[in-house]
Amino acid sequence: MRDVAVVGIGMTKFGERWDKQLRDLFVEAANEALKDASMGKDEVQALFVGNFSAGSFVGQEHVAPLLADYLSLKSKPAFRIENACASSGMAFNLACMAIASGIYDIVMVGGVEKMTDISVSEATSVYAKAMDAEWESFFGLTLPAAFALIARRHMVQYGTKPEQLAMVSVKNHRNATKNPLAQFQFEITVERVLTSPIVSDPLHVLDCSPITDGAAAIVLCSAELAKKYTDTPIYVLGFGAASDSIALHDRPDITTFSATVKASRQAYKMAGIEPKNINVAELHDSFTIAEIISYEDLGFCEKGKGGLMIEEGETEIGGRIPVNPSGGLKARGNPIGATGAAQIVEIVQQLRGEAGKRQVSDAEIGMTQNIGGSGSTCVVHIFGRQRR
Amino acid sequence: MRDVAVVGIGMTKFGERWDKQLRDLFVEAANEALKDASMGKDEVQALFVGNFSAGSFVGQEHVAPLLADYLSLKSKPAFRIENACASSGMAFNLACMAIASGIYDIVMVGGVEKMTDISVSEATSVYAKAMDAEWESFFGLTLPAAFALIARRHMVQYGTKPEQLAMVSVKNHRNATKNPLAQFQFEITVERVLTSPIVSDPLHVLDCSPITDGAAAIVLCSAELAKKYTDTPIYVLGFGAASDSIALHDRPDITTFSATVKASRQAYKMAGIEPKNINVAELHDSFTIAEIISYEDLGFCEKGKGGLMIEEGETEIGGRIPVNPSGGLKARGNPIGATGAAQIVEIVQQLRGEAGKRQVSDAEIGMTQNIGGSGSTCVVHIFGRQRR
Repeated sequence: MRDVAVVGIGMTKFGERWDKQLRDLFVEAANEALKDASMGKDEVQALFVGNFSAGSFVGQEHVAPLLADYLSLKSKPAFRIENACASSGMAFNLACMAIASGIYDIVMVGGVEKMTDISVSEATSVYAKAMDAEWESFFGLTLPAAFALIARRHMVQYGTKPEQLAMVSVKNHRNATKNPLAQFQFEITVERVLTSPIVSDPLHVLDCSPITDGAAAIVLCSAELAKKYTDTPIYVLGFGAASDSIALHDRPDITTFSATVKASRQAYKMAGIEPKNINVAELHDSFTIAEIISYEDLGFCEKGKGGLMIEEGETEIGGRIPVNPSGGLKARGNPIGATGAAQIVEIVQQLRGEAGKRQVSDAEIGMTQNIGGSGSTCVVHIFGRQRR
Repeated sequence: MRDVAVVGIGMTKFGERWDKQLRDLFVEAANEALKDASMGKDEVQALFVGNFSAGSFVGQEHVAPLLADYLSLKSKPAFRIENACASSGMAFNLACMAIASGIYDIVMVGGVEKMTDISVSEATSVYAKAMDAEWESFFGLTLPAAFALIARRHMVQYGTKPEQLAMVSVKNHRNATKNPLAQFQFEITVERVLTSPIVSDPLHVLDCSPITDGAAAIVLCSAELAKKYTDTPIYVLGFGAASDSIALHDRPDITTFSATVKASRQAYKMAGIEPKNINVAELHDSFTIAEIISYEDLGFCEKGKGGLMIEEGETEIGGRIPVNPSGGLKARGNPIGATGAAQIVEIVQQLRGEAGKRQVSDAEIGMTQNIGGSGSTCVVHIFGRQRR
């Protein structure tokens, strides 16, 4: 396939954005991405938008042409992709294929979610739509409860400790203090996590990513065109996507996300690299247990040793494989449809060497891993400073 | 780009399907498409699902991995695309690009909607989410009312008559009597349309497509592989997609869908043909006025002459360009997310010569035109019996 490069990125401040509507958030991020690419709107040939549930959050479906309209792309084709928290990761994946096909040379991928217009309890019901509505949510299972079951099983099977879960949150909060766009720019301690209210045992509120408004956008083009727009194109070296049973009870083992395993193996193969070659990664820490399991599923450590990996500091900035320097979903924030795009924005900044105080030194190859729901979708992208 | 062919199609009975859930409808259509392609599930490499608003209709988002799961595709990547009534047309478009890119060789495109689990008034609110929630729906504009405004303006500007609108419905109902999967398999008269209750003046209830449950599925592959699965592959000769202002009040002229004009011109160019070469077309008659405007936008007749075209019988089976031999959205039914896929199923049947009593004779080249909302998305595909 034809190689693809990222030439522009943009992101709004994540948080409770009472000051902005869905469309305004998107336009802010998109304009920044265009400015970053020194590109006019006329050059963008198509828009791919990741959005989870604007239909429930703000009463708006058909968001893709709406956003193309407000960005003044008007006549350009605009596709909306929905795969729960993996919406904009999957949108990016399709955008890469669209460029690879030769149909488009330059496209924009955006992600956006406006979640704070409804109550927390209503939002919890919307989250639950990412699982099996008939056989999970109907019986009262919420998304945090699903991850609590996963965490409990991981603790039983591998001896993972609540303190280790908490350390993921502590690390990601620490990183977020260096990210001016993060929702939570303050440090927390293991003790504070463990004494915070229980959402679903063993997960405390500080084990859970927050409800967030925000948007992120990326301009990508064929690798041949990239140098026209930037001196530091970041190349897509490989990708993979996979699905899994929607319901937890249909999976043979809930301590692993098989979609992550499959998606990442495809991505590694396509990029011609191994896990040890990853210098920096943005992983899907919707709940702390998810980051720990992802270390294992991605081959960063042996199965069952994810708790040890965080405890030993291997995923800190400066560690063996820094994970979530942005603050991750936990502290940067998790505007569902924008999360995958925000991960890519961070990795591009890291590989460009523009990540400021949270810069991972000598980052040549980076990864994003974006999970949907309780793991029934996963999409992985591998990026590099050098073309493959 | 690499050429693409359709090798399998499947569709459920459209209508009020109280007997089936969303997932069951999809699996029924998908299994039929696989059987039609003489293909095992293992050969399908990815799933593209068009769905408008399962989140609102049945409380389920993240439908793509759910459907992959219930079809036993489990680990394969599953993308959900939402562009209102154009959801599965846009999904098909992305699937073509994915195959053209070389990433996948064989994929399935499905469309599904389960709309009858909520009340008609609730459904009307869901439809309205396809327009501008802030500046149209909030002030009470419904989708039928938007098309009523469009119809009124077309009547003022071009002298289009209520009788001509009604004739679209009469034709499509007549065609549907020959389609065993259609929702409404009975004939109506112009008088019956004009004496049916007003939904939004000048549109009567029999000018409007119904609320429908249903699913349709298509198996497509690279043209090189097609003959392995079928003796009658139907090739994708061209396609185009475009967007327009989401709100009617931002358009310079509401008697035309500029997205249709742009998408179709791209498709004609890619296929190397002109409107006169189209032998059969499935057009987006969500409301009767939409079919009349589409004749004009697609270049089947001069601007403003759409009313005359239906009146003179040019779009009847046996006419110059037969339109909606399936019965169209009006009479075959309009399960929103499945509509684009159902259009493609019909055109493939027509080009294969398998359309039974509604067969258009000597059909070599066919078209589908799939509109989202009040026209802010349009996607057009052109199909042929011969490879381009």
